[in-house]
Amino acid sequence: MLYLDHAATSPVRPEVLEAMRPFLTGVFGNPSSHHTVGEAAASALEDARARVARALGMRAGDVIFTAGGTEANNLAVKGIVLASRRRHLVVSPIEHESILESAGYLERFHGAEVTAVPVDAHGRITSDALADVIREDTALVSLGHANNEIGTVQDVAALAAVTHATGAVLHADAVQSAGWLPLAGLGADALSLAGHKLGAPKGIGALAVRGRIPLEPLLHGGGQERRRRSGTENVAGAVALATALELAEAEREAVSAAVGDRTRAFVEAVLATVPQASLTGAADARLPGTASFTFAAVSGEAVLLELERRGVVSSSGSACAAGSDEPSHVLLACGIAPEVAQTSVRFTFGRTPLPAEAPAQLAALVADAVRAVSGS
Amino acid sequence: MLYLDHAATSPVRPEVLEAMRPFLTGVFGNPSSHHTVGEAAASALEDARARVARALGMRAGDVIFTAGGTEANNLAVKGIVLASRRRHLVVSPIEHESILESAGYLERFHGAEVTAVPVDAHGRITSDALADVIREDTALVSLGHANNEIGTVQDVAALAAVTHATGAVLHADAVQSAGWLPLAGLGADALSLAGHKLGAPKGIGALAVRGRIPLEPLLHGGGQERRRRSGTENVAGAVALATALELAEAEREAVSAAVGDRTRAFVEAVLATVPQASLTGAADARLPGTASFTFAAVSGEAVLLELERRGVVSSSGSACAAGSDEPSHVLLACGIAPEVAQTSVRFTFGRTPLPAEAPAQLAALVADAVRAVSGS
Repeated sequence: MLYLDHAATSPVRPEVLEAMRPFLTGVFGNPSSHHTVGEAAASALEDARARVARALGMRAGDVIFTAGGTEANNLAVKGIVLASRRRHLVVSPIEHESILESAGYLERFHGAEVTAVPVDAHGRITSDALADVIREDTALVSLGHANNEIGTVQDVAALAAVTHATGAVLHADAVQSAGWLPLAGLGADALSLAGHKLGAPKGIGALAVRGRIPLEPLLHGGGQERRRRSGTENVAGAVALATALELAEAEREAVSAAVGDRTRAFVEAVLATVPQASLTGAADARLPGTASFTFAAVSGEAVLLELERRGVVSSSGSACAAGSDEPSHVLLACGIAPEVAQTSVRFTFGRTPLPAEAPAQLAALVADAVRAVSGS
Repeated sequence: MLYLDHAATSPVRPEVLEAMRPFLTGVFGNPSSHHTVGEAAASALEDARARVARALGMRAGDVIFTAGGTEANNLAVKGIVLASRRRHLVVSPIEHESILESAGYLERFHGAEVTAVPVDAHGRITSDALADVIREDTALVSLGHANNEIGTVQDVAALAAVTHATGAVLHADAVQSAGWLPLAGLGADALSLAGHKLGAPKGIGALAVRGRIPLEPLLHGGGQERRRRSGTENVAGAVALATALELAEAEREAVSAAVGDRTRAFVEAVLATVPQASLTGAADARLPGTASFTFAAVSGEAVLLELERRGVVSSSGSACAAGSDEPSHVLLACGIAPEVAQTSVRFTFGRTPLPAEAPAQLAALVADAVRAVSGS
């Protein structure tokens, strides 16, 4: 079986499992406890925090460990807006559900006003488009650094400049880009991470938010994480996230280049061999490991099943929306017709580059699966 | 070293680590993914959910996995009140910070009105006291089944009857009582659990809330957990929690009886040998493994240090409040003077009963430590 759904989740890396093991066994203290057992745990937690901060180009005190990317996005969107006197926020229509639904919550319960900045056909937000919608009362601009369905990468530095001109805060959801693209120096004021996309387990993530930005907690209680996220800290998870992020950073350039080469070869081979295929998202500004297509007039779900019969596991798009029969909101926002959007298939590669012959072989399987579904 | 701070956190049980291992290695799928890799994870998650439900006497669909007890309490308090048209809630002054601060958040941001039902000198909430404060517009009564500092156990069934008479919902924080006291048939409409108090790792917990009770999510997004808690599910954590809870339930009566015997012997020995000692909390309706004292005119922190020098690790009270120099809000609410409250020392025993001679030996160490601090 060839697993090509790494954007949904990735296996835990053996080095990460090894690094977290002591904190699932001997070093079990509560980091808030004022005794040697607690202090050993607290020290590991603070070490993990410093390592995550270093990879992001932030300060250790900026890093808040969360239960995952969704909590990080909820904390960023709700926490920054609720702590601000401003009540307007900007998202884009292609954001992950955790950003869109958090914005919706602020509308329903807090009278916030949400503006969706339009994206172009490739899912890009231009500086001009953002400048058109940003306001003096905008508290927050929240957007994905790289899109989880089509892999399009935003020019965060340019969007940050527009955002900062009105005194607003820029939050970038880096759940998909972490480990693939550089995050330090990106220009965002807040960054979300999810461990399980990086080779750490599910159940750990982080929001890094520059220290002086006020933040209303999402989880209230004992005041852990500098009073910004209460709850006994997941020490093993924090160590796992730090380890996975450090490993990914160390190999990032080499991995991104190698995987990017294979992905490009795969995209070219699919476009050359499958007449119905059309690439979604940006041609160049995209994640190295993401290849997403529509297959005109062919059921995407049926193609997925045919591919799985042939040993290839892929997906129609976001796992978080896999329960829904609706066409992808991301593809619709890119101007793709609903009946075409429903034909989407996404291949997301892991960090170990496939052999040189894999792209052509895979494309042949895709062509075969599409033919089987088309009945031709 | 003898670790007597199990109310703060407990080591992961080896059987639990073993049960979760496959989900940190081979079975790594995202439960929301519609392919065989995702389905294997989803099936393990649903199995864990059913097992947790069985231990709680609830339905599988009632169980929402969270990142821990604090998130479970936040979700219960905020989620139930925000989904209700009523805006009054009742807590007690001895609750965990995650309940009190969640109630405070509802006051600050949602115009909710919070009433604290008084407790008696042992930390008990009587039905009469609750009946005096509950109102027609009370949405929720939220209280700890057993207190984390003094171990006092509430009569949840009686308090549920009073709560239900006005159509309100009763939430019981069972973080401390799970595995020690029966939870099935308790009469609460919602129950919070924390894995790491039970021998599962930090970073997993659950809120079980009866299905027909409306709940506004705390984490919005992809709609996991029946749209009540978004975010990729921590499958390994869920399996760990289910395993730990099942193990604890199977041995609960025997463990509670045996540990309770030792704890009572320890309390008697301390009261007999340390003239300054006074037991806090209820004499009988208390957790089997909790012994909490004040030591009049002796610094509790100094006693803790002396005990640690003698190889005994204990705490002044809640780890979640360990960063604070304030006297415990729990002890103050029980009518204990601030200068006495600051002398508190809490011993919380694990699930493996100590040898028969341990209570007397431990009490001698406590007497010794108190003498060292008193300088006599």
